[in-house]
Amino acid sequence: MQEIAYYDGQIGSSKDLAIPFDDRSHFFGDGVYDATISGNKIVYLLNEHLDRFYSSAKSLEINIPMTKPELFKLITDLTAKVDSKTCFVYWQVTRGVSWRCHAYPQDMQGKIAIFVRPEPDVLTTLPKPVKAITVDDNRFELCNIKTLNLIPSVMAYNKAVKAGAFEAILHRGEIVTECAHSNVVILKNGELITHPNDRFILRGIGKTHLIQACYRESVQVIEREFTVDEMMNADEVIITSSSDFAQAVGEIDGVKVGGKDPDTLQRIGMSNLNEYLRTISDLK
Amino acid sequence: MQEIAYYDGQIGSSKDLAIPFDDRSHFFGDGVYDATISGNKIVYLLNEHLDRFYSSAKSLEINIPMTKPELFKLITDLTAKVDSKTCFVYWQVTRGVSWRCHAYPQDMQGKIAIFVRPEPDVLTTLPKPVKAITVDDNRFELCNIKTLNLIPSVMAYNKAVKAGAFEAILHRGEIVTECAHSNVVILKNGELITHPNDRFILRGIGKTHLIQACYRESVQVIEREFTVDEMMNADEVIITSSSDFAQAVGEIDGVKVGGKDPDTLQRIGMSNLNEYLRTISDLK
Repeated sequence: MQEIAYYDGQIGSSKDLAIPFDDRSHFFGDGVYDATISGNKIVYLLNEHLDRFYSSAKSLEINIPMTKPELFKLITDLTAKVDSKTCFVYWQVTRGVSWRCHAYPQDMQGKIAIFVRPEPDVLTTLPKPVKAITVDDNRFELCNIKTLNLIPSVMAYNKAVKAGAFEAILHRGEIVTECAHSNVVILKNGELITHPNDRFILRGIGKTHLIQACYRESVQVIEREFTVDEMMNADEVIITSSSDFAQAVGEIDGVKVGGKDPDTLQRIGMSNLNEYLRTISDLK
Repeated sequence: MQEIAYYDGQIGSSKDLAIPFDDRSHFFGDGVYDATISGNKIVYLLNEHLDRFYSSAKSLEINIPMTKPELFKLITDLTAKVDSKTCFVYWQVTRGVSWRCHAYPQDMQGKIAIFVRPEPDVLTTLPKPVKAITVDDNRFELCNIKTLNLIPSVMAYNKAVKAGAFEAILHRGEIVTECAHSNVVILKNGELITHPNDRFILRGIGKTHLIQACYRESVQVIEREFTVDEMMNADEVIITSSSDFAQAVGEIDGVKVGGKDPDTLQRIGMSNLNEYLRTISDLK
């Protein structure tokens, strides 16, 4: 198939599937999601993404109507049906279907939606540095939960696209938090500095694996807040996510940044990327 | 009909209607809404609610695929089909239907959804004081826009329901902002004090009309922030919305509050309520 979608037991093209009018996503964005990429039918780091997904749901008292192994199998089976070496794999659960009311019955059964669609193959070398912009972080204080309440991220990313930029880097006052749909870290004096996993950012699984690449490469990782100013003067600025791996940033708000520690960037970036390439080559 | 729903030209029961898998409400809560009550087929303060609705959409660059007079007529016509003296009348617009991606095409056409369902009739006297709880306000800083990103309000209101309370009163630090789905104001020394219409609260149309009732009754209205402590020691605490009018609060977090200026409460509350009762009696 070219792409595949799933909602509560129905399978088809996303263009054919429909969701009930009273699904709580429709009125409240009342759900959580997770996403990653696949290569050669292997859904990359699926167990870790599922762990985060079930944690997000639990924080909001949303009942996922399936066990982790069942959902693992469903996502993997759907991915296998799409004719593409590389895919974007997305799934979510909403609180369920009920007459619109802020309050919800405690025994509601969540509704799962999934889609899998082709993506360009991941490069086997690090991509060229990209442009980014900065945007005020006006999101709510539940950023550690991967919810469907995404309007601030939508507006920020759209601003980036309009500016011809790859991503929008968010900051609360002087403190850099993360990006519209990825994390951002910096290199300074051979160390990687990353915002701690508090309520103001999502614990990125791409970021977690870039940190593990640092450990492998003897690069110290310091988890602390850093400022916009520190970022503008960093040796390297790196955007990281499960699909973009270690994406260097070369310009922010029209000002040249980074490019001062290409060696460390290359070492940790390739170590991170090679983990993916090794994983997906298991089936080759 | 017992209740009626509408989505993008389709009309039916909310149980029968479906929305496309790729409607952006499903993935991003990417839309805005408004709601009010009707009485005797008259949708109360519909023009004011529509003004706020179109303002909310404009702030997020969402295109409403209808003019205000067209939407006024559609909402009024649907309301006329429901067999109930009093109804809850709800409508929303999402950014539209597209392949899931944070960025959106500029020319997207919004999708309108509406439902109308029976509500108990509004009392012709002020209701008895209710219980409320306080909850930390962790919402994003777009509270002046009536968006579908409602998870924090959902969680707060659900906490209130579990506690047997009528509403959850939100506060940022010491400052009271509003409630999960209504505004809150206080009376002190014969004056009404209300949080200003900044980014941290929704400009309540129910609140606006309660303020007008104050003007009619020579009660001074002071728009300034007030603290949780001031609220706990106020002469009266009043929750206000388009469907609940002036609802006195008698207990917050288990502590008795208000009840010290029943005369002012009665005067502004009845003046406010009578505006509704007069409006809906036009067709009698």
